[in-house]
Amino acid sequence: MSKWNSVAILGVGLIGGSIGLALRRGGLADHVTGIGRSQSRLRNARKQGAVTSTTTAVARGVADAELVIVCTPVDHIVDHVRQVAAACRPGTLITDVGSTKERIVAELAGSLPRGVRFVGSHPMAGSEQVGCEHARPDLFAGRVVAVTPRGADRSGAASRIADFWTSLGAEVIRLAPRVHDRAVASTSHLPHVVASALAATLAEKDQPLAATGWRDTTRIAAGDVEMWKQILLDNRGHVLKSIDKFEKVLDSLRLALEQENERRLTRILQAGKTNRDALGS
Amino acid sequence: MSKWNSVAILGVGLIGGSIGLALRRGGLADHVTGIGRSQSRLRNARKQGAVTSTTTAVARGVADAELVIVCTPVDHIVDHVRQVAAACRPGTLITDVGSTKERIVAELAGSLPRGVRFVGSHPMAGSEQVGCEHARPDLFAGRVVAVTPRGADRSGAASRIADFWTSLGAEVIRLAPRVHDRAVASTSHLPHVVASALAATLAEKDQPLAATGWRDTTRIAAGDVEMWKQILLDNRGHVLKSIDKFEKVLDSLRLALEQENERRLTRILQAGKTNRDALGS
Repeated sequence: MSKWNSVAILGVGLIGGSIGLALRRGGLADHVTGIGRSQSRLRNARKQGAVTSTTTAVARGVADAELVIVCTPVDHIVDHVRQVAAACRPGTLITDVGSTKERIVAELAGSLPRGVRFVGSHPMAGSEQVGCEHARPDLFAGRVVAVTPRGADRSGAASRIADFWTSLGAEVIRLAPRVHDRAVASTSHLPHVVASALAATLAEKDQPLAATGWRDTTRIAAGDVEMWKQILLDNRGHVLKSIDKFEKVLDSLRLALEQENERRLTRILQAGKTNRDALGS
Repeated sequence: MSKWNSVAILGVGLIGGSIGLALRRGGLADHVTGIGRSQSRLRNARKQGAVTSTTTAVARGVADAELVIVCTPVDHIVDHVRQVAAACRPGTLITDVGSTKERIVAELAGSLPRGVRFVGSHPMAGSEQVGCEHARPDLFAGRVVAVTPRGADRSGAASRIADFWTSLGAEVIRLAPRVHDRAVASTSHLPHVVASALAATLAEKDQPLAATGWRDTTRIAAGDVEMWKQILLDNRGHVLKSIDKFEKVLDSLRLALEQENERRLTRILQAGKTNRDALGS
């Protein structure tokens, strides 16, 4: 007895594919429909067992779905949720996996047909890899997923979306969209900006001396450029504030080094170590 | 038939312990003497099989050594090399594993007893972990080790030190000390500064949302604070220049984001991705 009779996934890349694999391998859904533009990518998703049927037509793909997960880039999510909502049955739950939430949730608020519910999600999983070929059924195991309802959850939709992620092994945190965007600006978008700037700074002649430290620190700079550009633009205000905070700390470290102020240098290095140690490896 | 009859290691932490393990497991040295201040740490190194005998007296430890590797913090290396050189036999080779080379090599130049040779080394291995308990015989396998002779290698000492590292599985790059320090400022010390500043920027309330990206980007900030403070101070000039270069790129990225200049934003993110992709995972 599965939890869901029919689930639809719009966009079967790393995240969408991993959701499909987790649903199917976990026996959580009888039917998983993959929806996308590319026939070959949909075929691959079916071959991998991430979906049980595929279509390029959004309306057909969501017609019977009880749950639809929109896994497309942040600048397309609002349009896609509207398309899904216009075609699905009343009672259908819709969520997304976008890295930003404030604008998406605000634009969709109050604009969906009666009986169709959208609650935003953001799984803190994924990597610098892209594409369904890297999908894994355990991608969400032990990972945090933010669920971002707007205001009180009177319909219970946010609880059902939270249950969905919990069933994939994730740990759910419920946050207001604005609080989410401010927090991920600091924990996810700022690291991307810093890693990209650091990677871009490397001179070719120094490459042979780039060891583990450089590799770890710049790993996420290998992420998809178009996707990250959209995320950063979408969360521009919060990201700019995070960059300013970071630059203040960096300037302070730079000054301590310039002035050979050992106590101040120790204090900043120790603050970083304390925060890092608190998170574990 | 071993390569070395007797090798001494001054300082049996992660690096010194790993050298000992590699020498012993590889059958490369009959006797490996561990020299240090702490009896309990020396005992542990012997239990692990990293050394065959131990002493807290530098003079006794190096009396029979053909090769001595000084694995102490950068601000102690010059003193330790002098102590070793004063006590060892003519013909003994000495190297170190310090992360900076210019000052160390310059201070030692021309000041050692006749027949004793020092050539600086810097293995690009190690991690945020410290202590002999994390030592591994394969720590140097496939890793780059910089060997930094001062001028021409008339005595052949640099070649012999290079051979030593090659026998541990490392890939040796020969560099002038100044060229080395400028390069590692950018590939190793700048990443540490950036990772520390990024980790120090995190607010406690945002910790639950720190995912893989944050963890990768800040991993090296967990490194030993005292050790890193000394390295940064020792290579201050080059590190300050590297920070300036990085801040220019970051400012340019910040401005592109502020002005919603998509083309410029793409260009910087793509430059980072290209450099990162060139290095592999």
